[in-house]
Amino acid sequence: MLSPVTPAFEAELRQILPATSFKEDTAPYLSEPRGRWAGQGFVVAPATVDEVAAVVKACAAEHVAIVPYSGGTGLVGGQLLQEGAKPVVLSLERMNRIRAVYPTENVLVCDAGVILADVQKAAEDVDRLFPLSLASEGSARVGGLLSTNAGGVNVLRYGNARALCLGLEVVRPDGTVWHGLTRLRKDNTGYDLRDLMIGAEGTLGIITGATLRLVPRPASIGAAMMAVPSPEAALQLLAMAGSHIGDGLSAFELIHRQGFDFLAEVGPDVRQPFTELPEWSVLIDVGLPKGLASQDALEGLFEAAFGAGLVTDGVIAQSLNQRQELWDIRENIPEANRRIGSISSHDISLPLSAVPDFIKRGGEAIAAIGAFRINCFGHLGDGNLHYNVFPMPGLSRADFMAERQLVKTALHDLAHGMGGSVSAEHGIGRLKVGDLERYGDPVKLAMLRAIKDALDPAGIMNPGAVLRQPA
Amino acid sequence: MLSPVTPAFEAELRQILPATSFKEDTAPYLSEPRGRWAGQGFVVAPATVDEVAAVVKACAAEHVAIVPYSGGTGLVGGQLLQEGAKPVVLSLERMNRIRAVYPTENVLVCDAGVILADVQKAAEDVDRLFPLSLASEGSARVGGLLSTNAGGVNVLRYGNARALCLGLEVVRPDGTVWHGLTRLRKDNTGYDLRDLMIGAEGTLGIITGATLRLVPRPASIGAAMMAVPSPEAALQLLAMAGSHIGDGLSAFELIHRQGFDFLAEVGPDVRQPFTELPEWSVLIDVGLPKGLASQDALEGLFEAAFGAGLVTDGVIAQSLNQRQELWDIRENIPEANRRIGSISSHDISLPLSAVPDFIKRGGEAIAAIGAFRINCFGHLGDGNLHYNVFPMPGLSRADFMAERQLVKTALHDLAHGMGGSVSAEHGIGRLKVGDLERYGDPVKLAMLRAIKDALDPAGIMNPGAVLRQPA
Repeated sequence: MLSPVTPAFEAELRQILPATSFKEDTAPYLSEPRGRWAGQGFVVAPATVDEVAAVVKACAAEHVAIVPYSGGTGLVGGQLLQEGAKPVVLSLERMNRIRAVYPTENVLVCDAGVILADVQKAAEDVDRLFPLSLASEGSARVGGLLSTNAGGVNVLRYGNARALCLGLEVVRPDGTVWHGLTRLRKDNTGYDLRDLMIGAEGTLGIITGATLRLVPRPASIGAAMMAVPSPEAALQLLAMAGSHIGDGLSAFELIHRQGFDFLAEVGPDVRQPFTELPEWSVLIDVGLPKGLASQDALEGLFEAAFGAGLVTDGVIAQSLNQRQELWDIRENIPEANRRIGSISSHDISLPLSAVPDFIKRGGEAIAAIGAFRINCFGHLGDGNLHYNVFPMPGLSRADFMAERQLVKTALHDLAHGMGGSVSAEHGIGRLKVGDLERYGDPVKLAMLRAIKDALDPAGIMNPGAVLRQPA
Repeated sequence: MLSPVTPAFEAELRQILPATSFKEDTAPYLSEPRGRWAGQGFVVAPATVDEVAAVVKACAAEHVAIVPYSGGTGLVGGQLLQEGAKPVVLSLERMNRIRAVYPTENVLVCDAGVILADVQKAAEDVDRLFPLSLASEGSARVGGLLSTNAGGVNVLRYGNARALCLGLEVVRPDGTVWHGLTRLRKDNTGYDLRDLMIGAEGTLGIITGATLRLVPRPASIGAAMMAVPSPEAALQLLAMAGSHIGDGLSAFELIHRQGFDFLAEVGPDVRQPFTELPEWSVLIDVGLPKGLASQDALEGLFEAAFGAGLVTDGVIAQSLNQRQELWDIRENIPEANRRIGSISSHDISLPLSAVPDFIKRGGEAIAAIGAFRINCFGHLGDGNLHYNVFPMPGLSRADFMAERQLVKTALHDLAHGMGGSVSAEHGIGRLKVGDLERYGDPVKLAMLRAIKDALDPAGIMNPGAVLRQPA
């Protein structure tokens, strides 16, 4: 049984931490980006790993739950405990130092509370790239990005957050500290604790520091938007891009016309590249070595693809500004979606070759439920679709609360049946615990539970996230 | 307590498996590549995952230990149980089917007993590359490669075995099967069991199948060998290669003159590329997209490096044959080492920028013990040195058994003190259990033990590997 934070426990924490460590128990700590649920908790913001360890030890002694709070941008409620004994919300915001940068090694070591954009900036300052890039990069922090194994637009080339981390510093649920901040590229000494902590959503310990992998900055970067006749053609274009451009392919994003229509309807305002809006288009981003210009590579790809009937129209950015304009389209689609207001949004991944069939069958399944608008877009190179369902013009999401669960179940059943995942990059949090139970292999679930019980026997770390709290 | 395989238990296994599943209890199953230790066990070779599960269930019921046996090429004794109750040695050799290849997805699914060279061949057949490449690729099998998180020459570009695996099928220590053979690029649904099993050296379960990641074949491949004035210069050349060639850099191998001298002394015969043998040289391998010839890229790099004083001489391969000749030098060094006979060999990794200092201080530490020849070579791009110590000419390794432990401890202490690892890519097995205990963070060791106890409570899976058996 977990105990709530009591006035006596608060007083104890005030003995342990300096006065600057205490925050008002208000939003943003207790709300989430879409404003759908509210949390509870006593908010503390320690500034060092030793302070984090001291808080955790105090909580462990009293069986008080801890909810780690990073940038607060998660979409599945992993940062919010709605019910049960009032927890400590442990914010990483004051652990925001870049500890060291090693340009020769392509390595950066930082606190877990550093904002992603600040990591990107620190890499740029030494002529390197930290390639993790996603919509919330101005507020998401390293600890949360690692705890959710964040994805974003460059996974195709550089992998997800997991692939960009070499080492971790973690405060365990008993308050001991695992000093795993290695700068090594290779270290086969025992089980892979790093990757176990990454993606554990704060349920096995608190990440307080990380060694991150930087990469060389490509000599020539560029982008193109190409209209494709179908999702199948987009997949063939992806394979063709692989044989032309290889590892130089940084992103391959699918966009449906619905995204353009939403942007035209509610903004944000973007420059539309096509004379006639295609049903499907892709945004291709490349970064190439010295001696090969991005425009040339993209023109070569376009010509080959046009000859093969895989593209019908296209725009190749002739400058970094034009490249940014193309990206503005892609990056503003989530904001347009928010303005329209989705009935249900999904973070689906599929085996690549199953994507076209999923799009077709998903549309049929939704049509069987009712008349909706579908905006399907996302990271096609990773088989990751953000498949969002919206009301028809003039109606609002509130009109469809009854259909919402039907839509969700239909799409998740379909994805699962096709070998897909119902959480490609957002994680389980508390929102998808039921999905994990419904779709997860029972042997896998037993292993998850065994690991949780072994590493957090008292169950104080982010209880109810990923795994349901034992009754 | 574990029970030995008895005649009654053998009879039970003969009821479960067809007669073709039983092998003679001889080498190679009970020996290792360098012939240093002998194992024991009753050898079975099931042909399907269900047969593996049946064997494991029988063993679990009787508390009989299981030693998984893959290609048998491991260098740390993970495949050999020397003492204690006679185990079942479970060979994967009959699970050797490529299950499916998905060229569009860059995915291949196979049994764990497939030999690495056969995976490479299957990828080539569909114009793709499976980039894991190492000396033992003609006999090493997928299960062992994953269980040891194998490295090799292309880790710099493509990552180690872990980075090339999307999903696993695993028989757990209770005989249940985790069906995790996903073809997904992204799947954030629960803890990362895949990466926990990868590198666990068969102590948490038996990998029976894997989904592997293929990559596009680079349009132009090539190599160069360049003489560098020092390890420091080699590191600066590596950084320069990153800015010129970026992801196109496939391998960056350091070679000391001692390697050339050994090849000249005992063979194998190779074509020596330099007119005057340099103290240090590097082998650089590249794979580039369409529109950029490897020779041009390597020439550009050489000119820039020569101008900066980072290289003094160099040979750029003008054909695939010449590229192979350069690689033959690198790949025959381990065989020359074997013929000379090392007193002690090491698989060290270091933070990249610590490599030159380690080489200097390592040499001093060895000189303080006695007069030896040192062959230091390896994957500089990964900070991974194969640092091997040999007797002076006319003497043999048998003359230095007393010094052996001194050498080992001096080098391992030094690497550990500089933030390095004493097992970069070979794993812990049984040979390095003491090293893990000596150098491992105690909090890390407690976590390893908790995970082992949680996932294999009876302790039947490869007992004594990675972690010492409880007394």
